[in-house]
Amino acid sequence: MDKQALLKKTEQINTVIEAFLPKEGEYDQLIVNAMNYSVLAGGKRLRPLMMQTAFHVFANDTKEPEILHRFMAAIECIHTYSLCHDDLPSMDNDMYRRGNLTTHAKYGEAFGILAGDGLLNYAFELIAEGMLQEEAAALAKDVHAFCVLAEKAGYRGMVGGQSLDVFLDQTQDADTKQEQLEYIYRTKTSALLEASFMIGAILAGASEQEISILEDVAGKTGFAFQIQDDILDLTGDEEVIGKPIHSDEKNGKKTFVSFAGLEQAKKAVEEYSMDAVRLLDEIPYPTDEMKELITYLMDRDN
Amino acid sequence: MDKQALLKKTEQINTVIEAFLPKEGEYDQLIVNAMNYSVLAGGKRLRPLMMQTAFHVFANDTKEPEILHRFMAAIECIHTYSLCHDDLPSMDNDMYRRGNLTTHAKYGEAFGILAGDGLLNYAFELIAEGMLQEEAAALAKDVHAFCVLAEKAGYRGMVGGQSLDVFLDQTQDADTKQEQLEYIYRTKTSALLEASFMIGAILAGASEQEISILEDVAGKTGFAFQIQDDILDLTGDEEVIGKPIHSDEKNGKKTFVSFAGLEQAKKAVEEYSMDAVRLLDEIPYPTDEMKELITYLMDRDN
Repeated sequence: MDKQALLKKTEQINTVIEAFLPKEGEYDQLIVNAMNYSVLAGGKRLRPLMMQTAFHVFANDTKEPEILHRFMAAIECIHTYSLCHDDLPSMDNDMYRRGNLTTHAKYGEAFGILAGDGLLNYAFELIAEGMLQEEAAALAKDVHAFCVLAEKAGYRGMVGGQSLDVFLDQTQDADTKQEQLEYIYRTKTSALLEASFMIGAILAGASEQEISILEDVAGKTGFAFQIQDDILDLTGDEEVIGKPIHSDEKNGKKTFVSFAGLEQAKKAVEEYSMDAVRLLDEIPYPTDEMKELITYLMDRDN
Repeated sequence: MDKQALLKKTEQINTVIEAFLPKEGEYDQLIVNAMNYSVLAGGKRLRPLMMQTAFHVFANDTKEPEILHRFMAAIECIHTYSLCHDDLPSMDNDMYRRGNLTTHAKYGEAFGILAGDGLLNYAFELIAEGMLQEEAAALAKDVHAFCVLAEKAGYRGMVGGQSLDVFLDQTQDADTKQEQLEYIYRTKTSALLEASFMIGAILAGASEQEISILEDVAGKTGFAFQIQDDILDLTGDEEVIGKPIHSDEKNGKKTFVSFAGLEQAKKAVEEYSMDAVRLLDEIPYPTDEMKELITYLMDRDN
């Protein structure tokens, strides 16, 4: 994927996200500042980018509707809230993320929690307000997209994965089974990636089957992504990643590499991402951009 | 309000809530247990009760639609998540609530956070799934109700109020202004009560004006309720309340009583609740049950 093109897309996505950030009122400056700090602390905007890319595969019109932008901002808020909470002292206990102070490190633990709560809730405020402005005929797709987002973010998705991950961390990980790890990969990370692709497709009017294929593509991409993350933890460049490496090892954390070894892990990344790309051949529309995106994700070094 | 009648309603509401609790899957038992523990730890189910009561003021049919039950369960999940997080060590730091261990006390801090996150998200899962099942014609009301809930729960409502409350606690409260306290009352507590009345009315097909009146009624009721809470903290029976009294004083916390004194506070409770009841006379439907509910809230001793 052309680096310039990617940069341009990311800039455009940042403009969208910034347009939909909460606005300060008279008494809520601190919480709004904390929420916005969390969102603006950076990030590759991967999920909104996936959503946007998926939309363009199926959309008749290249013009992006406001509801798509709202869902893009919403999913980034949900991703951000999850990082806010993951970084808290009682969970991963990180003072830095992407080279910046984490929200709790900057604003205190209570505001780390509240900023996360605010952002999770705000994602749904954005969607609700978007739906309020829609023509009745468009609502069915919006409701479908809303369902997918809510389910994938919640206890059956991201929260579920994070919970088991935290539990295994706390019980020192010794008996972690590979199937538990795979559940965590499916839910903690893949779920929101699936939501990203699916929502883009849903809002563009894709069929049930096409949406299901994209779910599968995102799931495999997510697996590859997460295993790549484990590999980078062992082999990556600290400065590029933005946080200390070997943190998994230090925490006694079982990863895919613990079960499969480094070589098998690298093969798995290869296979999962190739499967993902191959699945896209079943879609009767141009999917080159999507394939480039997936490939780009796998080549990342941070 | 007849105590037997109230008990019967609360039982029915508990049945509704229990029917809509999350169900355990293979790997998410712990988070589901923690979420359900939080919800089932008790509570007067005030918000679903208010919502149900408001619905019946305006509804043509006494039959309660599923979407109403979903919103009732959803608002109780949101209320519960807020308590979950409020009780955390970095916030109010409570080990007990209503005589039971708080969620973080029982499951650990990480699960106290995650159970709250799960419940907040789950409220929106319930609404999304409900909307998925609706006829297109019914969706407009559901979207309106969804908007109200999302806004009142978020940074412009409950989260905003909790944030300023926490901030003032941390800065030792000395310069708290009365207007800041009133903002906190409006948002931290009243907002969800307003949502409760408004959503019941919205789902029953009430007019904009009627919804607005109910918002006002709930706002005034919420003020009275919160001031009553402050009074009970000074004068209430520990065993009945279920947690130690004088906790505000011990924490150096400014309350309405700090600004107005005990006698004025009692008068304010009287006036706000009378204003709320009087506003209901503007509604051209039977509002006796609603008036009884408001009066009951004010007579409470816990």
